[in-house]
Amino acid sequence: MNSNLLADNPRSTVAAPVLRTKAELRAAVAEAKREGRTVGFVPTMGYLHEGHLSLIRAARAECDLVVMSLFVNPTQFGAGEDLDRYPRDEERDLQLASEAGADLVFAPEVEEVYPDGHKGIATYVEVTGQLTGVLDGDPSRRGPEHFRGVTTVVAKLFNLVDPDVAYFGQKDAQQAVVIRRMVRDLDFPVRIEVLPTVREPDGLAMSSRNAYLGEEDRQRATALNRALQAAERGAREGGIGVGLEAARRELALAGIEPEYLEARDAETLERVDALEERPILVLVAAQVGPARLIDNVLIHPTNVK
Amino acid sequence: MNSNLLADNPRSTVAAPVLRTKAELRAAVAEAKREGRTVGFVPTMGYLHEGHLSLIRAARAECDLVVMSLFVNPTQFGAGEDLDRYPRDEERDLQLASEAGADLVFAPEVEEVYPDGHKGIATYVEVTGQLTGVLDGDPSRRGPEHFRGVTTVVAKLFNLVDPDVAYFGQKDAQQAVVIRRMVRDLDFPVRIEVLPTVREPDGLAMSSRNAYLGEEDRQRATALNRALQAAERGAREGGIGVGLEAARRELALAGIEPEYLEARDAETLERVDALEERPILVLVAAQVGPARLIDNVLIHPTNVK
Repeated sequence: MNSNLLADNPRSTVAAPVLRTKAELRAAVAEAKREGRTVGFVPTMGYLHEGHLSLIRAARAECDLVVMSLFVNPTQFGAGEDLDRYPRDEERDLQLASEAGADLVFAPEVEEVYPDGHKGIATYVEVTGQLTGVLDGDPSRRGPEHFRGVTTVVAKLFNLVDPDVAYFGQKDAQQAVVIRRMVRDLDFPVRIEVLPTVREPDGLAMSSRNAYLGEEDRQRATALNRALQAAERGAREGGIGVGLEAARRELALAGIEPEYLEARDAETLERVDALEERPILVLVAAQVGPARLIDNVLIHPTNVK
Repeated sequence: MNSNLLADNPRSTVAAPVLRTKAELRAAVAEAKREGRTVGFVPTMGYLHEGHLSLIRAARAECDLVVMSLFVNPTQFGAGEDLDRYPRDEERDLQLASEAGADLVFAPEVEEVYPDGHKGIATYVEVTGQLTGVLDGDPSRRGPEHFRGVTTVVAKLFNLVDPDVAYFGQKDAQQAVVIRRMVRDLDFPVRIEVLPTVREPDGLAMSSRNAYLGEEDRQRATALNRALQAAERGAREGGIGVGLEAARRELALAGIEPEYLEARDAETLERVDALEERPILVLVAAQVGPARLIDNVLIHPTNVK
């Protein structure tokens, strides 16, 4: 490469190698393991933002080998969902991942992950019951099949990467709860780290799906975070019912009718309507123009009266 | 121990250490892995017979560390099945396993494997469709839940033992097919070895459940193997229909009405009624007095005309 080009390019980090096959990935990880190196893993669907990068940086700080996967997993999208238009920009992703500290990027084709096609898979890993049947798992929304798609692909990736630690974002709070449960129930030898949601300066939770938002919807979308802040304040001052009511008013001001706006136990996802000694999640999902967005706030017992 | 006792005891091998907790097991395996040793794994429900021991010996010949699990897994037994009376003799099992070459025996209590109780588990690994819905998986028999119990506990054990190779018996042919499929679909980094059925001198397939048989039923039970031999001969000479008819006659002579007696593709478990270029399984299940017995014969294309 021409050194002038390098000098002109603010992203001069050499991109991490991209592995397309399971065999290459296994070989690379096996070599690191033989050398006694620890492995940190950040699974993503790409179109990276600061949320993803915060996970990579955490892995970089804790582990010897940092593996990121970049795979838009078709089995976690439902029939009417946005699989076909999900945003992609692999070249940019590789550059950003490398700068944040990824050593390897596993970016397979669908056929490599699902040799019989993603509609031909026979084996599922499924967390059943409350955790996958409510909120996004409600059959009227994404449904339990969404989480079955997530847990199955994450189990496969865990078996391929064999990580010591895997990093997930709190923005997908229900997903994090489901994955923690899967790891516990199936004895996966992986420590799960869930890192705080990263937000835009105006409070909007970072999400690859924010790319769908036009200017007006982008502005309206900030109401989600305002609503959650109002929920926490209200809960602290007057109890959960007051908090949820305040949140609903914030959303209404922006013309947003939530798909759900609920307070639930942060571990069991059981509905709570009174303050407890346990952490509580207030979770919201809403269609804002062309984008279905989710967000949440974790209220620790010490924060509420 | 008194050396006279040792001299008097034909089983003088020092028994392999018994590990009761996941933590002990993980620590022992991790130490072996750090030293670069390969791990062979033989999952059992105990009450060992020569079939199990042949698996342990194979693991001993191929691997540096041989781990056997001894766990009567409640989740693979149905409501009317023999969980409560399943035969157990841990002391004898430990001695036999050690003599055959096991280095470690993982023999946990149910609560260690299923901390929420075996009826409280939320996460399943399930192979769906044909493989688990026919033969023993038919809802009128053990049902797909049986195999869901098997695949879930085997997935847990794979995550705990992290074996390079795992050994299963061909006697449980459908189970072996289902586990191979699970390993392939979920990318478990484990090689599956399926070893031939070990038989008594009179041909009866070894099974822990043979212990249920009184003298007369023990004699009648030999008809299963005779039937499968007749099936193979008949198939070779006149086709699958002829083979199955001959087998049915052998069973009838012993007064045995099979639960099923079928010829199926050895990999897909699809029903076959003509000879093919692919291996075929003839599988039989029958209640013989107090014991439900299964057996099978694998017919390779080169064996049939």
